[in-house]
Amino acid sequence: MTHDPTASLTELRDRLGVIADLTQASALMTWDQRTYLPPKGNTGRSRAIATIGRLRHDHMTDNGLADVLAALEAADLEGDDAALVRETRRDVDLATRLPRELVGRAAEQFSVAQTRWAAARADDDFASFAPVLRENLVVVREIAQAHAAGGDLYDALHDLYERDSTAAAVEAVFTPLRAELVELVGEIRERGRAIDVAPLLGAFDEGRQERFNVSVARAFGYDMEAGRLDRTTHPFASGIGRGDVRITTRYKSDDLRGALFPTLHEAGHGIYEQNLPAEHAGTPLGRYASLGVHESQSRLWENVVGRSLPFWEWAYPRLQETFPDRLGAVGLEAFHAAMNVVEPSLIRVEADEVTYHLHVMIRFELERALLDGSLEVDDLPGAWNERYEAYLGITPPDDRRGCLQDVHWAGGMIGYFPTYSLGTLLSAQLWEALRRDQGDVDDAMRRGEFGGILSWLIEHVHRHGRRYTPAELTRRATGAELSAEPYLRYAREKYGTLYGL
Amino acid sequence: MTHDPTASLTELRDRLGVIADLTQASALMTWDQRTYLPPKGNTGRSRAIATIGRLRHDHMTDNGLADVLAALEAADLEGDDAALVRETRRDVDLATRLPRELVGRAAEQFSVAQTRWAAARADDDFASFAPVLRENLVVVREIAQAHAAGGDLYDALHDLYERDSTAAAVEAVFTPLRAELVELVGEIRERGRAIDVAPLLGAFDEGRQERFNVSVARAFGYDMEAGRLDRTTHPFASGIGRGDVRITTRYKSDDLRGALFPTLHEAGHGIYEQNLPAEHAGTPLGRYASLGVHESQSRLWENVVGRSLPFWEWAYPRLQETFPDRLGAVGLEAFHAAMNVVEPSLIRVEADEVTYHLHVMIRFELERALLDGSLEVDDLPGAWNERYEAYLGITPPDDRRGCLQDVHWAGGMIGYFPTYSLGTLLSAQLWEALRRDQGDVDDAMRRGEFGGILSWLIEHVHRHGRRYTPAELTRRATGAELSAEPYLRYAREKYGTLYGL
Repeated sequence: MTHDPTASLTELRDRLGVIADLTQASALMTWDQRTYLPPKGNTGRSRAIATIGRLRHDHMTDNGLADVLAALEAADLEGDDAALVRETRRDVDLATRLPRELVGRAAEQFSVAQTRWAAARADDDFASFAPVLRENLVVVREIAQAHAAGGDLYDALHDLYERDSTAAAVEAVFTPLRAELVELVGEIRERGRAIDVAPLLGAFDEGRQERFNVSVARAFGYDMEAGRLDRTTHPFASGIGRGDVRITTRYKSDDLRGALFPTLHEAGHGIYEQNLPAEHAGTPLGRYASLGVHESQSRLWENVVGRSLPFWEWAYPRLQETFPDRLGAVGLEAFHAAMNVVEPSLIRVEADEVTYHLHVMIRFELERALLDGSLEVDDLPGAWNERYEAYLGITPPDDRRGCLQDVHWAGGMIGYFPTYSLGTLLSAQLWEALRRDQGDVDDAMRRGEFGGILSWLIEHVHRHGRRYTPAELTRRATGAELSAEPYLRYAREKYGTLYGL
Repeated sequence: MTHDPTASLTELRDRLGVIADLTQASALMTWDQRTYLPPKGNTGRSRAIATIGRLRHDHMTDNGLADVLAALEAADLEGDDAALVRETRRDVDLATRLPRELVGRAAEQFSVAQTRWAAARADDDFASFAPVLRENLVVVREIAQAHAAGGDLYDALHDLYERDSTAAAVEAVFTPLRAELVELVGEIRERGRAIDVAPLLGAFDEGRQERFNVSVARAFGYDMEAGRLDRTTHPFASGIGRGDVRITTRYKSDDLRGALFPTLHEAGHGIYEQNLPAEHAGTPLGRYASLGVHESQSRLWENVVGRSLPFWEWAYPRLQETFPDRLGAVGLEAFHAAMNVVEPSLIRVEADEVTYHLHVMIRFELERALLDGSLEVDDLPGAWNERYEAYLGITPPDDRRGCLQDVHWAGGMIGYFPTYSLGTLLSAQLWEALRRDQGDVDDAMRRGEFGGILSWLIEHVHRHGRRYTPAELTRRATGAELSAEPYLRYAREKYGTLYGL
């Protein structure tokens, strides 16, 4: 057999382009289902999303694609071409393990389940969601079994979101992290000075909030000509296609933090998607490295930058101009402290940086128990509330603010949550490396200049797309394996200062 | 070969369901491109729409579909099953005539062209659109040739929008219609009383307009739980999927009519789509009969109902409450007359009922000339303006209000415009039949009750989907062939009274 790698590469890219276009259709249909779809369109939309999922699977498992991929694996490729073939192989193998029938059934099940979840959450009615979640788990186990090849089901699912990671690896990071955080939270509670959050509470005009939040997202680098900001129950970011990366937020009627930090968080995701390598658009190489790496970007902009004092030295006068009546008399330091108050709370996406991981750990434990059947769905609210009491010392007053708050399990995503913490740890590790390379970036932030930070992230993370595995990307960017230490150094220093420990 | 029609029908519906889901994806991607897509996403979106178009074509021309269709044609089917097979045959034949390559190229060309048109229209820059329109015409001619099989190119295109109609049939209706309308417009100008449109001009708060317009659309029967209202440059309606039928409008800063009538017009389209037969959803039988029939619904609600005195007897007090400062002192009769003023104008979608057809006739003449090459694209603005001077006595001051006002040619739609007049004529013919069946419906309208009208339309038009050809549907609903006479009777009586002729 004669190989012409050039022609084969062109054919490969053409085939991947069709798959990417189907993915674009599916991503838009899902975004629309969460934003603007009329309620009576839900059933038809879920079915159509399932159909597109099956067609995508057909193309991914097509013999023609298998043939051209095999031919390219036999050729002597280097650099990006070799990486493209390697990453396409991963995606093809992942698809091939799943029966076509399961792909469509799962897509429809999870699409319907998300709609049912949104209604159950709005009505605070876990009982109406429980049967749907049970059905989800049946389907999720089928998917896990297809991937696990006899191995651990949770690991098989987790690998879909965080490549090469395992539950054991997560535990190895979580165990010391939990101990250190419990200690830090205890110190803050026992010895920390009191911080008043009152300046952030009460009503703030939503239109003004949105204008301010968007202005900050743009300053960070989120391109509104290639993106949007809409409103949803659960904030999310979606890279729909090249030049089309959308984010959403929600507004809290009584807390300025409720929309601001989700907006900055999702903008961080959006900035990553907007800077993925254009030359690899429509191929696996043009996609993000992992969800943990994705989360490192959102958490870096949301927290490491967006909750820092140098950032607010620039931003706070602008926010005061936006809300002169509310904030005109509140000083920068008081405002900054209020934005960073550490206190046990109910909602993960609104949690402070320190207690955040405890929310994730609770989900990690519960989803493993749901998956292996040691926790019954009907017992989830109780188990959830027990853990909140044990880890955070508070009990959700209802399931809306308890086990119904996150969309993930409704969307069939089990094994996803740990990536939030892994990404947060990576954000601190990347920040240390960035400061090693660039020196102090605080002065730039004080001037509202974020281009240096963005350039470093593009150079070391975004532009690589999926060229490297998450572990390799981490090593190349930071010179070390992923570790909780940089994050703990960051948290101890920041909160030690803030709370006068 | 043994036929099991039941199994074959199930297979047919399954295959058509996949095609319908691809159509849903494509419809949403197009709706989104006109409403919310970030500008930098346009190129990727156009390519993805083209991909979906090619995949849809693949499924429509698939050998498996051809086989099951042939088997069903050989079976002895009756009623809806026979109609389903007949209508699927039409769609399959239409698809099969087009080469796959042309389908994708056309989808991408027309998608890009619409974006270029929107920019050219915004900038009033015909020169930037001219090369795109030339490219469109090349592609449109290829499509026409594929369908015409040596016959007339315009007829082949027109049949795509108005089945079984021809340019000669359109001319046979247009020629007497033109003569009668020119006479009526002349009488109004020479002998009609003066009508003051001032009450409708000036600024009206857009939010209040929208609330009022939506309340009317809902009263007519447009279901906002199965639909939306958004804002676009060019108002349109799109049946995206079952339970998901969206309409758009635009707002004029200085004229109350600018958003109201497009909203009612598109709501009329939406109501038709929302009442297509649910049992045939996802098959050709569940689709609209023709664009002319579609337009008969929009024009009936917009004009026959929406510009009538009995309707405003109910609606006007509500509008006065909405704008007490502007309309509190304006009487019903003066307001109703202003809403119906007949005067030559530049924008088709804002034209009064009488001069409207002249706008359509101009486009019908010009698009035939563009298609057969007797009119060069560069000469279009001049030819457009000449005809506006000749037919309406006014010359557009710019191309934005001239030949750049409509999206159709940018979207590759040649042969579409006549359906606007055919549908308008049908709306009056349906109205006569409805009043024959139901007696005077004015009293119901005066009470804000439109359910009787809607029921009649569902019974005689909507619920049939594509079961009958447009001509057959017209005969069954009205007892006669389509004719301009009912419309002319309606127009002479209404405008004779209004203008005191």
